[in-house]
Amino acid sequence: MKLNVGLIGLGRLGKVYARDLSSRLAETRLTAVADVNAALAAEVASEFEVPKSYGDPRGLLKDPGVDAVVIVSPTHTHRDVVIAAMDARKPTFCEKPLALSLDECRAMQAAVEKSGTFFQMGFMRRFDPGYAAAKRQIDEGRIGRPVVFKSTSRDPFPPSLEYANPKSSGGILVDMGIHDFDLARWFMGDVKSVAAVGGVLAYPELATVGDIDNAIATLVFADGRLGVIDLTRNGFYGYDIITELLGTEGTVRVGYLRETPVLTMTKNSVSHDTVPYFMERFERAYTLQLRNFAQNVLSERTPPITIRDGVEALRVALAATAACKSRTTVDVSSIE
Amino acid sequence: MKLNVGLIGLGRLGKVYARDLSSRLAETRLTAVADVNAALAAEVASEFEVPKSYGDPRGLLKDPGVDAVVIVSPTHTHRDVVIAAMDARKPTFCEKPLALSLDECRAMQAAVEKSGTFFQMGFMRRFDPGYAAAKRQIDEGRIGRPVVFKSTSRDPFPPSLEYANPKSSGGILVDMGIHDFDLARWFMGDVKSVAAVGGVLAYPELATVGDIDNAIATLVFADGRLGVIDLTRNGFYGYDIITELLGTEGTVRVGYLRETPVLTMTKNSVSHDTVPYFMERFERAYTLQLRNFAQNVLSERTPPITIRDGVEALRVALAATAACKSRTTVDVSSIE
Amino acid sequence: MKLNVGLIGLGRLGKVYARDLSSRLAETRLTAVADVNAALAAEVASEFEVPKSYGDPRGLLKDPGVDAVVIVSPTHTHRDVVIAAMDARKPTFCEKPLALSLDECRAMQAAVEKSGTFFQMGFMRRFDPGYAAAKRQIDEGRIGRPVVFKSTSRDPFPPSLEYANPKSSGGILVDMGIHDFDLARWFMGDVKSVAAVGGVLAYPELATVGDIDNAIATLVFADGRLGVIDLTRNGFYGYDIITELLGTEGTVRVGYLRETPVLTMTKNSVSHDTVPYFMERFERAYTLQLRNFAQNVLSERTPPITIRDGVEALRVALAATAACKSRTTVDVSSIE
Amino acid sequence: MKLNVGLIGLGRLGKVYARDLSSRLAETRLTAVADVNAALAAEVASEFEVPKSYGDPRGLLKDPGVDAVVIVSPTHTHRDVVIAAMDARKPTFCEKPLALSLDECRAMQAAVEKSGTFFQMGFMRRFDPGYAAAKRQIDEGRIGRPVVFKSTSRDPFPPSLEYANPKSSGGILVDMGIHDFDLARWFMGDVKSVAAVGGVLAYPELATVGDIDNAIATLVFADGRLGVIDLTRNGFYGYDIITELLGTEGTVRVGYLRETPVLTMTKNSVSHDTVPYFMERFERAYTLQLRNFAQNVLSERTPPITIRDGVEALRVALAATAACKSRTTVDVSSIE
Repeated sequence: MKLNVGLIGLGRLGKVYARDLSSRLAETRLTAVADVNAALAAEVASEFEVPKSYGDPRGLLKDPGVDAVVIVSPTHTHRDVVIAAMDARKPTFCEKPLALSLDECRAMQAAVEKSGTFFQMGFMRRFDPGYAAAKRQIDEGRIGRPVVFKSTSRDPFPPSLEYANPKSSGGILVDMGIHDFDLARWFMGDVKSVAAVGGVLAYPELATVGDIDNAIATLVFADGRLGVIDLTRNGFYGYDIITELLGTEGTVRVGYLRETPVLTMTKNSVSHDTVPYFMERFERAYTLQLRNFAQNVLSERTPPITIRDGVEALRVALAATAACKSRTTVDVSSIE
Repeated sequence: MKLNVGLIGLGRLGKVYARDLSSRLAETRLTAVADVNAALAAEVASEFEVPKSYGDPRGLLKDPGVDAVVIVSPTHTHRDVVIAAMDARKPTFCEKPLALSLDECRAMQAAVEKSGTFFQMGFMRRFDPGYAAAKRQIDEGRIGRPVVFKSTSRDPFPPSLEYANPKSSGGILVDMGIHDFDLARWFMGDVKSVAAVGGVLAYPELATVGDIDNAIATLVFADGRLGVIDLTRNGFYGYDIITELLGTEGTVRVGYLRETPVLTMTKNSVSHDTVPYFMERFERAYTLQLRNFAQNVLSERTPPITIRDGVEALRVALAATAACKSRTTVDVSSIE
Repeated sequence: MKLNVGLIGLGRLGKVYARDLSSRLAETRLTAVADVNAALAAEVASEFEVPKSYGDPRGLLKDPGVDAVVIVSPTHTHRDVVIAAMDARKPTFCEKPLALSLDECRAMQAAVEKSGTFFQMGFMRRFDPGYAAAKRQIDEGRIGRPVVFKSTSRDPFPPSLEYANPKSSGGILVDMGIHDFDLARWFMGDVKSVAAVGGVLAYPELATVGDIDNAIATLVFADGRLGVIDLTRNGFYGYDIITELLGTEGTVRVGYLRETPVLTMTKNSVSHDTVPYFMERFERAYTLQLRNFAQNVLSERTPPITIRDGVEALRVALAATAACKSRTTVDVSSIE
Repeated sequence: MKLNVGLIGLGRLGKVYARDLSSRLAETRLTAVADVNAALAAEVASEFEVPKSYGDPRGLLKDPGVDAVVIVSPTHTHRDVVIAAMDARKPTFCEKPLALSLDECRAMQAAVEKSGTFFQMGFMRRFDPGYAAAKRQIDEGRIGRPVVFKSTSRDPFPPSLEYANPKSSGGILVDMGIHDFDLARWFMGDVKSVAAVGGVLAYPELATVGDIDNAIATLVFADGRLGVIDLTRNGFYGYDIITELLGTEGTVRVGYLRETPVLTMTKNSVSHDTVPYFMERFERAYTLQLRNFAQNVLSERTPPITIRDGVEALRVALAATAACKSRTTVDVSSIE
């Protein structure tokens, strides 16, 4: 049996999901797409042979041929669409970040609780075979007890100023950091306090919209264990994501930089290429994430990543953003 | 415009191709499948929503809804199916090896020439992004003039005795080596002579069907440059494919052994996993190979890998097999 | 011409220096050794065929056969020995850390200034061929402008409780961190403020003497650039030192974990060994450091690492220690 | 107790040995040096503070202050010097290759047997920590039974024409290959037959003296197991030595290419340096080899590498040279 999925939001990632849902996944059938740009919706529907397209997500949510929805529209729209999906009792997958404010989060969380409908938060790194293998090894005790969490995320070039604007992106610690903060919680549990430093060091133009290009946050987890996350928009050499769990009896490190398996050796030098950007690194994780969502809905399993995970990762990111501005340590629980 | 493809042969690789042709490739529509096991053909047709299924390839070849055919049936069937496809004037892709004897090759080659229909030989490694990047770098002169070709192929476990039987597999130097012999020709041109050694060193049971589990062949190319290929069925630790071109000003090496990007560091040891088998290593190459075929047919381009490439790689493999038995150097041109 | 060197302090590192000075370096002759343990001094003198041995550094400092001195006695003795060496006008090399308090530092700094005698601070990592190559590449502009400094130091096992006691070791941020804080200053200049977190996470017994086993410090440099240093005593898998400079046009990373060039591949696993401890990693740096000292004295060059470098690295380490306790950001200039 | 060593031959490697014997090794005292260039001998004696120097090895061999001798004079002199050392009953270490002809070998072997004096053959790779660790792992059974031996040796640039002349060097298969042939015998036992191909592919001027710049040899060991060795003079990118033992349950690979632990990441590229030449790669092996010799003599242990090892490695190299010329398989036992 296949799950009939409606897809809301047809930007860059939306099109990737359209392809996954329409052809890559044996578990799904893409039966409807929606975008506020109705022409785009129609075009995508045609390209992927999707029966229906909508210029308004509400239309899609009323479509009885839609069993479940995948929401990948812009972050600021998540609140309304998620609440509407919960009202329509459609099992829902929502891409990260859940929102940019905790007020929005609370509204969505209330809707999910009231409706009792299945809701799965999207944090694709948890489905990357590398991260999944690391989690398995740690759960099996291979490194003893993990005591320090380290994560590095590097984008190879800065976003457009429009995108970078913290009003829409949340700023680097939300926009890029949300993945690392979620990983931190996944591997180590809740975060008690955060401190952070940051600055505009490589791309002065980012200052004009109020964003920074480098940030480093230290974390103290609820039980006193430690974490550190560093983010940069000047990865320049390539897209580089590294996460490490240091344990009492060993370490697990996830990350690689080579795109093709080619080593070129010339005079006194050995070199290889790098991963260009996130889709080359995590394409499979995105696909596996959607498959997991479909399987969960079809098998009536509980979601592995809940709306609370979305809320709490945001809370840590907001605490880090506040700490970076004030140069003080911020209790995560103080962020409301 | 999409190419309507008929797929002949639905074994392990056939099913992979069915998925690629039916959903992964924007350029193709899988309109018919055929297998001598008609029930299997019907089942695969149902799974991938293919309009038609046939218990006999001849049926598929007469189907006017089929624009082009992909042949991945057992090697011993290639001759008849290819000749029939050429008679039916269907543009054809044929999986390697072309055949196990040069007699069969000649019959197919005659049919291709007489028909004048598009025929593309399948050697998927040429479409692997790693091998393609290596070729590009060499063509750009990054290592000067390549003078030595080295290639290693290791399977992680032995095939079944039924599969290994040289009567159907051609023996290790044909079955495994055909890829390396094709790469040798692609990178360095025609091969003049071959010498080889081999033996049953790890899996004594292979001797009962007349195969060996390890072989090493040295090549002298037409212009005097050198090559060496080593093959083993006891890769044991994982699937390991390495090719290197040593040039006058550098070297290019293609190959990797890590499956997931996880390093595990425990007491005095750093370790990572390995690539399990060929599909994990070359899945993308298979897909890219079929896309290339479809694009070539749609755009009326000439095939990048011709039937002659299939014939000549086999001739070298047969020369190596003869050299391994006789422990003498064998002129490739003497194999007819 | 050879420099006649007197060596003060014959502990673990002292013996390594005795061998370097007596036989490995063409530039030096080891003419005297001193240790408060006179029997040990005599024994070392005999082993390395050193003409004279002293039970009191003062004796050695008066020896007219001694052209220059290398001080590697315990940190708490540095002040008196350095001041005496300056009084005796012997060109001096002093091992890190300079001292554990800024009061001691000031006393030594005054003596150096008053005497005007050559004084070189020991921070051996600057002489490691890896670090030296990284510095060269950065100075040549290969990564643009470095904007973030990252450094990780991991010891493979905890020190004895006696050693770890912050009263003699200074605590983890001084004892281990001093190297990283010096590197931070070498690559990026003076540090403006520090924040830090830390804890006893792996070896509870360290709490009994007041030390911690893990710490992470973030740095803001005088010009606003950023840094992060993480230290652990539970490297467990091996001795692991990694430093990275992230620049606007690339990155340089120094560090490796493999001791012997052996890869062992067994079922689904590739593994190699790790560097056991600091001498295996930095033996050559220690030797090169002493050679540089001898050459500087012989050629009357100014010291590449001055007493101010020793003082300022300590100041940052003390600021980090204070920040770790108070969980506040500490201005480095406030530490006096 | 120290061994008083006399050193014969003061070329490039002779000077390295002079330093090792005079200062690096606790077990030895360098008491005499000899070279047919008496001025050079005097100069080296002065530099390393060696009591005596000789313009004729015979003088050194009569010196009662010399307990044992290390012979590193040109290969063509080995026969006379070794025979004289055996007559003088001096325990002897002789650098590889033993000789360039089996006739010379036989004369030396007879002298060793008649004299009964300790004789140790020099094959330094066996003392490299990497090769030693590989041997240990194999002996412990970590890869099951090794069935294929592979070895690659690459020099970064061609030798002078004078050096390369096969009359003095033996040609590439003796000059470079002797190390690999010795490793082959060490890991796998005696070699039954050899085949080889080779050519002048990168440096045409080598043809003028009768040498080639690339060669590939396949080996069949006495028990039917297999080996392959490839040699090149156009390593160009660096000095690259790789040896691999493929076993029934895994593989051990020895080799590395990185000189300093620095990774430089720039636009779409990660690169590191390479090992310049043999001394950077094997300096420690040379030192450990001499230490082992001294310890063996001092402790009256039997030599781990005998004159037979020297003879048999040469026999295989000569068989390979003959096979390369004739393009036939050559039985090693046929070379006399």
